[in-house]
Amino acid sequence: MKVRVHIERRPEIADPEGSTVARALSDLGFDEVAGVRMNRVIDLEVEGDDPEQVKARVAEMCRQLLANPVLEDFEVEIVG
Amino acid sequence: MKVRVHIERRPEIADPEGSTVARALSDLGFDEVAGVRMNRVIDLEVEGDDPEQVKARVAEMCRQLLANPVLEDFEVEIVG
Repeated sequence: MKVRVHIERRPEIADPEGSTVARALSDLGFDEVAGVRMNRVIDLEVEGDDPEQVKARVAEMCRQLLANPVLEDFEVEIVG
Repeated sequence: MKVRVHIERRPEIADPEGSTVARALSDLGFDEVAGVRMNRVIDLEVEGDDPEQVKARVAEMCRQLLANPVLEDFEVEIVG
Protein backbone atom coordinates (compact mmCIF):
# COMPACT_ATOMS: atom_id res chain seq x y z
CA MET A 1 0.00 0.00 0.00
CA LYS A 2 1.36 3.44 -0.89
CA VAL A 3 1.07 5.94 1.94
CA ARG A 4 1.89 9.64 1.85
CA VAL A 5 2.64 11.63 4.98
CA HIS A 6 2.43 15.43 4.84
CA ILE A 7 4.42 17.13 7.59
CA GLU A 8 4.20 20.88 8.19
CA ARG A 9 5.53 23.09 10.91
CA ARG A 10 2.68 24.50 12.95
CA PRO A 11 1.70 27.94 11.65
CA GLU A 12 2.65 29.64 14.93
CA ILE A 13 6.16 28.07 14.91
CA ALA A 14 8.91 30.06 13.15
CA ASP A 15 10.62 28.39 10.18
CA PRO A 16 14.28 29.48 10.17
CA GLU A 17 15.09 27.39 7.08
CA GLY A 18 12.25 29.08 5.20
CA SER A 19 13.46 32.53 6.30
CA THR A 20 16.97 31.72 5.05
CA VAL A 21 15.62 30.58 1.68
CA ALA A 22 13.48 33.74 1.43
CA ARG A 23 16.58 35.90 2.00
CA ALA A 24 18.58 33.90 -0.54
CA LEU A 25 15.82 34.31 -3.15
CA SER A 26 15.77 38.05 -2.49
CA ASP A 27 19.57 38.17 -2.91
CA LEU A 28 19.11 36.45 -6.29
CA GLY A 29 16.71 39.19 -7.39
CA PHE A 30 13.41 37.45 -6.66
CA ASP A 31 12.04 40.44 -4.74
CA GLU A 32 8.42 39.35 -5.10
CA VAL A 33 8.78 36.60 -2.48
CA ALA A 34 6.98 37.59 0.72
CA GLY A 35 7.36 34.33 2.65
CA VAL A 36 8.66 30.78 2.46
CA ARG A 37 7.75 27.68 4.51
CA MET A 38 9.66 24.43 4.09
CA ASN A 39 7.54 21.32 4.54
CA ARG A 40 8.10 17.61 4.07
CA VAL A 41 6.34 14.79 2.31
CA ILE A 42 7.31 11.20 3.07
CA ASP A 43 6.20 8.44 0.68
CA LEU A 44 6.09 4.98 2.20
CA GLU A 45 5.45 1.54 0.76
CA VAL A 46 3.76 -0.38 3.57
CA GLU A 47 2.60 -4.00 3.60
CA GLY A 48 -0.95 -4.49 4.80
CA ASP A 49 -4.52 -5.03 3.62
CA ASP A 50 -6.62 -2.85 5.87
CA PRO A 51 -6.27 0.87 4.99
CA GLU A 52 -7.48 2.04 8.41
CA GLN A 53 -5.00 -0.20 10.20
CA VAL A 54 -2.16 0.92 7.90
CA LYS A 55 -3.07 4.58 8.52
CA ALA A 56 -3.04 4.01 12.29
CA ARG A 57 0.38 2.31 12.11
CA VAL A 58 1.84 5.11 9.98
CA ALA A 59 0.42 7.73 12.39
CA GLU A 60 2.27 5.87 15.15
CA MET A 61 5.48 5.98 13.01
CA CYS A 62 4.98 9.76 12.77
CA ARG A 63 4.63 10.14 16.52
CA GLN A 64 7.67 7.95 17.24
CA LEU A 65 10.06 8.99 14.46
CA LEU A 66 8.90 10.75 11.31
CA ALA A 67 7.52 13.98 12.75
CA ASN A 68 8.27 16.19 15.71
CA PRO A 69 4.89 16.43 17.45
CA VAL A 70 5.99 19.53 19.38
CA LEU A 71 6.72 21.59 16.27
CA GLU A 72 4.93 19.85 13.46
CA ASP A 73 1.50 18.68 12.35
CA PHE A 74 1.19 15.59 10.19
CA GLU A 75 -1.46 14.06 7.96
CA VAL A 76 -1.49 10.46 6.70
CA GLU A 77 -3.06 9.67 3.32
CA ILE A 78 -3.44 6.33 1.51
CA VAL A 79 -2.53 7.02 -2.13
CA GLY A 80 -2.63 3.58 -3.72
CA MET B 1 -0.45 34.53 -4.45
CA LYS B 2 0.17 31.24 -2.66
CA VAL B 3 2.42 28.89 -4.59
CA ARG B 4 3.32 25.31 -3.69
CA VAL B 5 6.41 23.60 -5.08
CA HIS B 6 6.62 19.80 -4.95
CA ILE B 7 10.19 18.50 -5.14
CA GLU B 8 10.93 14.79 -5.51
CA ARG B 9 14.09 12.90 -6.16
CA ARG B 10 13.97 11.27 -9.57
CA PRO B 11 12.78 7.67 -9.24
CA GLU B 12 16.07 6.28 -10.56
CA ILE B 13 18.13 8.26 -7.99
CA ALA B 14 18.79 6.52 -4.67
CA ASP B 15 17.45 8.21 -1.54
CA PRO B 16 19.93 7.57 1.31
CA GLU B 17 17.87 9.56 3.81
CA GLY B 18 14.82 7.44 2.97
CA SER B 19 16.85 4.23 3.37
CA THR B 20 18.07 5.39 6.78
CA VAL B 21 14.52 6.17 7.90
CA ALA B 22 13.32 2.76 6.62
CA ARG B 23 16.00 1.04 8.70
CA ALA B 24 15.15 3.11 11.78
CA LEU B 25 11.45 2.23 11.40
CA SER B 26 12.37 -1.45 11.14
CA ASP B 27 14.50 -1.14 14.30
CA LEU B 28 11.46 0.34 16.07
CA GLY B 29 9.41 -2.73 15.11
CA PHE B 30 7.62 -1.35 12.05
CA ASP B 31 8.55 -4.36 9.93
CA GLU B 32 5.82 -3.76 7.37
CA VAL B 33 7.68 -0.83 5.79
CA ALA B 34 9.08 -1.85 2.39
CA GLY B 35 10.38 1.53 1.23
CA VAL B 36 10.64 5.20 2.15
CA ARG B 37 11.24 8.27 -0.04
CA MET B 38 11.77 11.69 1.50
CA ASN B 39 10.38 14.56 -0.55
CA ARG B 40 9.98 18.27 -0.03
CA VAL B 41 7.17 20.76 -0.36
CA ILE B 42 7.92 24.47 -0.32
CA ASP B 43 5.08 26.94 0.23
CA LEU B 44 5.74 30.45 -1.02
CA GLU B 45 3.82 33.70 -0.76
CA VAL B 46 4.63 35.55 -3.98
CA GLU B 47 3.47 39.01 -5.07
CA GLY B 48 2.01 39.15 -8.57
CA ASP B 49 -1.24 39.21 -10.52
CA ASP B 50 -0.62 36.89 -13.47
CA PRO B 51 -0.62 33.20 -12.41
CA GLU B 52 1.33 32.08 -15.50
CA GLN B 53 4.02 34.70 -14.91
CA VAL B 54 4.23 33.80 -11.20
CA LYS B 55 4.56 30.10 -12.09
CA ALA B 56 7.35 30.87 -14.56
CA ARG B 57 9.22 32.95 -11.96
CA VAL B 58 8.89 30.23 -9.31
CA ALA B 59 10.10 27.59 -11.81
CA GLU B 60 13.16 29.82 -12.32
CA MET B 61 13.63 29.97 -8.50
CA CYS B 62 13.57 26.15 -8.51
CA ARG B 63 16.23 25.95 -11.21
CA GLN B 64 18.46 28.51 -9.49
CA LEU B 65 18.04 27.62 -5.82
CA LEU B 66 15.12 25.55 -4.53
CA ALA B 67 15.70 22.26 -6.35
CA ASN B 68 18.68 20.33 -7.59
CA PRO B 69 17.85 19.77 -11.26
CA VAL B 70 20.38 16.95 -11.52
CA LEU B 71 18.75 14.81 -8.82
CA GLU B 72 15.25 16.18 -8.45
CA ASP B 73 12.07 16.87 -10.37
CA PHE B 74 9.87 19.78 -9.37
CA GLU B 75 6.29 20.87 -10.00
CA VAL B 76 4.89 24.35 -9.39
CA GLU B 77 1.25 24.77 -8.41
CA ILE B 78 -0.77 27.94 -7.69
CA VAL B 79 -2.85 27.17 -4.60
CA GLY B 80 -4.54 30.50 -3.83
